[in-house]
Amino acid sequence: MQPKRLSVLGVGLLGGSIGLAAKARLTQCRVLGYAHRAETLQSALARGAIDEGYDDPRRAVQNADLVVLCTPVGMLGDLLDQIAPALAPGAIVTDVGSTKRSVVAHGRRAMAGSPARFVGSHPMAGSEKRGVQYAQADLFEGATCVLTPDESTDPDALSAVETFWRELGMTTLRMTPAEHDRRVAEISHLPHALAAALVAMQEGESLSLAGKGFADATRIAAGDGGLWRDIFLDNQDNLRDSLARLRASLDEMLGCLDAEKADQLKAWLDAAAGKREAWGKSTAREGKGRV
Amino acid sequence: MQPKRLSVLGVGLLGGSIGLAAKARLTQCRVLGYAHRAETLQSALARGAIDEGYDDPRRAVQNADLVVLCTPVGMLGDLLDQIAPALAPGAIVTDVGSTKRSVVAHGRRAMAGSPARFVGSHPMAGSEKRGVQYAQADLFEGATCVLTPDESTDPDALSAVETFWRELGMTTLRMTPAEHDRRVAEISHLPHALAAALVAMQEGESLSLAGKGFADATRIAAGDGGLWRDIFLDNQDNLRDSLARLRASLDEMLGCLDAEKADQLKAWLDAAAGKREAWGKSTAREGKGRV
Repeated sequence: MQPKRLSVLGVGLLGGSIGLAAKARLTQCRVLGYAHRAETLQSALARGAIDEGYDDPRRAVQNADLVVLCTPVGMLGDLLDQIAPALAPGAIVTDVGSTKRSVVAHGRRAMAGSPARFVGSHPMAGSEKRGVQYAQADLFEGATCVLTPDESTDPDALSAVETFWRELGMTTLRMTPAEHDRRVAEISHLPHALAAALVAMQEGESLSLAGKGFADATRIAAGDGGLWRDIFLDNQDNLRDSLARLRASLDEMLGCLDAEKADQLKAWLDAAAGKREAWGKSTAREGKGRV
Repeated sequence: MQPKRLSVLGVGLLGGSIGLAAKARLTQCRVLGYAHRAETLQSALARGAIDEGYDDPRRAVQNADLVVLCTPVGMLGDLLDQIAPALAPGAIVTDVGSTKRSVVAHGRRAMAGSPARFVGSHPMAGSEKRGVQYAQADLFEGATCVLTPDESTDPDALSAVETFWRELGMTTLRMTPAEHDRRVAEISHLPHALAAALVAMQEGESLSLAGKGFADATRIAAGDGGLWRDIFLDNQDNLRDSLARLRASLDEMLGCLDAEKADQLKAWLDAAAGKREAWGKSTAREGKGRV
């Protein structure tokens, strides 16, 4: 799908990057942006990320053929309810939320009485930075976008949204909302929780000794607390489960943290190192698709 | 101290970088290198990291005024015993080991019957890479070196070793071996264990969704299992203790992982983010002194 009128609701890092990418890569695509604050709209307009700015989401979606919700996860439900009556017949609505079960269920309910269709998306790109000033037209290039259809998803709308993300340079894949939420808990939400706990537990002068390894390991902890609160709460069952599995893995390590079990300890460490190296080689993401 | 004959025992990433840095920054310093394998010596010579190569550590330390032990932590004790009888009167011996209690105690014992003096050092620089091919003359610039004197450490030798690391561009600080080991457990050894466990627990297709955040958070897990086994075993009491404190911090987060405690959850996440950001701004180590 090459939308002619693309509506981006929430013009921060992700929304702004979608606007920039659409304008750079799609022909004759007009980008309409919504933000709550006037100065955010001004920045997005000045940055060239949107062509028109609105402080009312219902006005920002009028006559749009594709609407992308880019607000924090905690606001997606309300936004869907607000825009549903204002959508054009045939309009397709998607989102960039980091959790998918709740928003896909809400999208189905909200669109039930509307002539529009909802498809859940999660472009796996971003950064710990916030705001349209950090938006980049190439943010999505080479990164993966997960589409999360459920049994009620319209196949044509699904395929149109898939095409849209590919036009922005992404690889797409499909999984159920439940599988998506389980997998992102372990590769994104749990790492965030660990990084935050690792920073929180530091005592006294220890941080003055910390180097590049610590900086890398904890960089994701510098994200916005409000955004992550919403993600954690929405995906709390999977976060608890993945944390339990991490603890089991650490218990395995502790079980061989003994000079008499040195071989087992080395094997545990080597296995993790080998898995990490194999993944690093298999992916372009060492340097791309910041999540 | 500006050594005239510097002996580097173990010419991998760290030893090779010390050789390169000494030759770049010190005047008239001849670098003698020891490695077990002939091809390692050849690489170090070819790289210009050492001037002379020996496969016997006792020959590599003859007439050296400063000896730096750069082998893995698990081999430091044996190496100290081997070289002690071959050291020149007045020679100063130090090391780059990641744990300090055991090597400082061993150094004291080994030097007791020798005319040489031991001082424990831990230059907080390095990388998950191995080998002299990754050595860099500027590896130490701007990074911190911890000196770990105990009650038996000769003050002149301590100050000479301190000067040596500063000549290589480092900031130095002093703490007891016990304090050092406690602090590095929480800023280096625990993060390594967490990164390894985070990789180890990944199931099925989850890694195919992982992005830059996961790559950063787990990069340190790609280190050599044998090196880390030795470090973990040598510092196991502190590693266990810091892991217990991390679990307590995670329990605190889990305790407010509930919609009714959303404010507490946000406060926990914001506190960690704020601490991480403050540290990031206070340090040059976001980009330097890779550990």
